[in-house]
Amino acid sequence: MAIDYKKELEAAAKNMILVHEPRTLISMIVRLMVNKVGVIHTGILLHDQDKESYILCVSRGNKGSKIPAGFARMNYSNPLIRLFRERKEKEVTNDGVLISGELRHLLKKRIGPRVKERIEDVLRQMEMLDAVACIPSYFQDELLGVLFLGKKKNGREFHRKELDFFVALASDVAMALRNAQLFKQLQDELNRRQQLFINTTVALAAAIEAKDRYTHGHTERVTNLSLEIARTLMADGGSINIDNIFLERLHIAALLHDIGKIGVPEGILNKDGPLTPEEWEKMRMHPVIGAKILQTISELDYAVLGIKYHHERFDGKGYPEGLAGDNIPLIAAIIAVADTYDAMTSDRPYRKAKTEKEAIDEISHCSGQQFNPRIVSAFLKLSRQNKI
Amino acid sequence: MAIDYKKELEAAAKNMILVHEPRTLISMIVRLMVNKVGVIHTGILLHDQDKESYILCVSRGNKGSKIPAGFARMNYSNPLIRLFRERKEKEVTNDGVLISGELRHLLKKRIGPRVKERIEDVLRQMEMLDAVACIPSYFQDELLGVLFLGKKKNGREFHRKELDFFVALASDVAMALRNAQLFKQLQDELNRRQQLFINTTVALAAAIEAKDRYTHGHTERVTNLSLEIARTLMADGGSINIDNIFLERLHIAALLHDIGKIGVPEGILNKDGPLTPEEWEKMRMHPVIGAKILQTISELDYAVLGIKYHHERFDGKGYPEGLAGDNIPLIAAIIAVADTYDAMTSDRPYRKAKTEKEAIDEISHCSGQQFNPRIVSAFLKLSRQNKI
Repeated sequence: MAIDYKKELEAAAKNMILVHEPRTLISMIVRLMVNKVGVIHTGILLHDQDKESYILCVSRGNKGSKIPAGFARMNYSNPLIRLFRERKEKEVTNDGVLISGELRHLLKKRIGPRVKERIEDVLRQMEMLDAVACIPSYFQDELLGVLFLGKKKNGREFHRKELDFFVALASDVAMALRNAQLFKQLQDELNRRQQLFINTTVALAAAIEAKDRYTHGHTERVTNLSLEIARTLMADGGSINIDNIFLERLHIAALLHDIGKIGVPEGILNKDGPLTPEEWEKMRMHPVIGAKILQTISELDYAVLGIKYHHERFDGKGYPEGLAGDNIPLIAAIIAVADTYDAMTSDRPYRKAKTEKEAIDEISHCSGQQFNPRIVSAFLKLSRQNKI
Repeated sequence: MAIDYKKELEAAAKNMILVHEPRTLISMIVRLMVNKVGVIHTGILLHDQDKESYILCVSRGNKGSKIPAGFARMNYSNPLIRLFRERKEKEVTNDGVLISGELRHLLKKRIGPRVKERIEDVLRQMEMLDAVACIPSYFQDELLGVLFLGKKKNGREFHRKELDFFVALASDVAMALRNAQLFKQLQDELNRRQQLFINTTVALAAAIEAKDRYTHGHTERVTNLSLEIARTLMADGGSINIDNIFLERLHIAALLHDIGKIGVPEGILNKDGPLTPEEWEKMRMHPVIGAKILQTISELDYAVLGIKYHHERFDGKGYPEGLAGDNIPLIAAIIAVADTYDAMTSDRPYRKAKTEKEAIDEISHCSGQQFNPRIVSAFLKLSRQNKI
């Protein structure tokens, strides 16, 4: 028996544990079986508890496979599945493994009609899978899956010793798969919750924005433009270091940059005409009010800087603190450009909107004065790519 | 060599993969080594990438262990760690395993001063750990950890064959541990994000609530009381089926139950005195406005029912739809009781607050009319326990 591949498979089985993407893992296993063991095709039936069935995960190698991968599902009453789940018929599953040749041999012997029927049922299932051997794998008492093997390319039979080795392997494989499934579940849950967080923030920000009848859609546009600017800076590399965590924080900060307007009286927000100096004073409180609303949430520390300082100017003439140059947090400096561009291109009761070209020219003109030149440069790059 | 425990350890190592709590896993491994292999004590030094060091995870068995578990940390320059990480000194680590007896034997031979110094350094580390053998485990090229073994209880030496087996085991163990660590990281991240979601919702709800100067702290009190009522219903069992998912949804719904007030003019929210019928009309829109704000978020479908229907009455005389009895979603019926109780016990411009006793009596009196009797009954149980 040629088991030169045994060491290789054992090592591979070990490494499987840290593969946490079920599909990758299954392809890996199947590739191993096809290339190293030299079977024509192979596949795995994997337990899906929610669907109370076993799903054919992949079936590779043999073009003429009768069941397309992803379509086959065997429920608990399937003869093959039932045999492995019940673990009763010791005379059928020699040592827990099913081998089609041995089953056919058994049919010729003097056996009871019930056993005969069972064997014929199981053989039909194996034929459908084009399998010459089926190897179950268990975790505790649960049948996690069934690894099945087609014929060998060299036409030889599987040795019993070889199959024993696969039994051990199948259990590693099943365990790794179950582990990967659990990992994926957790990862999906994480993504789901992150999306819920963003969606809820979007909805609440939009509701607050709706108090200000002049800024419809402003938050969404500022958020999109801020993220585009940041992605451009990220792609350019350069001295500004932007990663995905920064993007996530910028996303939240941009969504909530005007949240402090909830603390500005409706009469001021919706006034038909220019504000008096006293009214401007109150309006200019919104970045600080916004920061105050979120200040207790330590995970939002950096996002809060974006909210608090999005009206600072590069030349130090902004508010609330008159920060200048690189003292203005990058997150705020990005929102400042996106926010000003969107305000300039929107109508206000006391002035008409500028055209996009006029607004872009003005942003360019204010580089180094109102705005951080590196951010203006990214903004202008976007405009040349017609991404604004 | 007595390796009757070999099968047991192999089976245990397999099962380790699905243990996703690193501490549980480490205790499991150490217990196995102490009980099955009969070592006096044992422990694991585990790689902590963030801290760029190897942490002593547990050290069990020997009372006189020189290093208290959880305190020992070895950085990359530690002689023991460096030896295993660099994998250079083949003459020292016979087959990758360190055995104190063999090292001492080596010192007596003719060796170079550099190697001698190395060996002495390593022996000092092993003495500190009370270890007679150290077995490294790698994943790809990374040293994941070092399993170390104290003396055997029966006083015998470890056989080379026995150690070879531990080498294989150590790699399973390290893999399982790394897997568990990754799992825990993901789980922690999940909890962190869920907390961020709740905290942000709390902050935004509080900001919106601040528009209404009569309801300071109302949202927080209604949320706490709603959750207490639900937990009481849950503990009682009975026909009302409440699980943790329900509690999570109730939490969000209670936090956001008055979110629709953002759509009610400030003049009405803050009016000094009773509202006119037209003003009431606008005020009574808040449940529907609240539901509208969140309606596109499918994960919040059930929570939105709590927001939309928290002013319905059990007798069908509430708003916005006049739903009655069990047609009112449970989540809304719970918030209704908590919301009304808190409103009754708070001052309003046109009336004084009721005392707690008066309010509780009134809730009790309105059971079956304004409120669902099963919820009132849970509410009264809480009040008898002084939990309101």
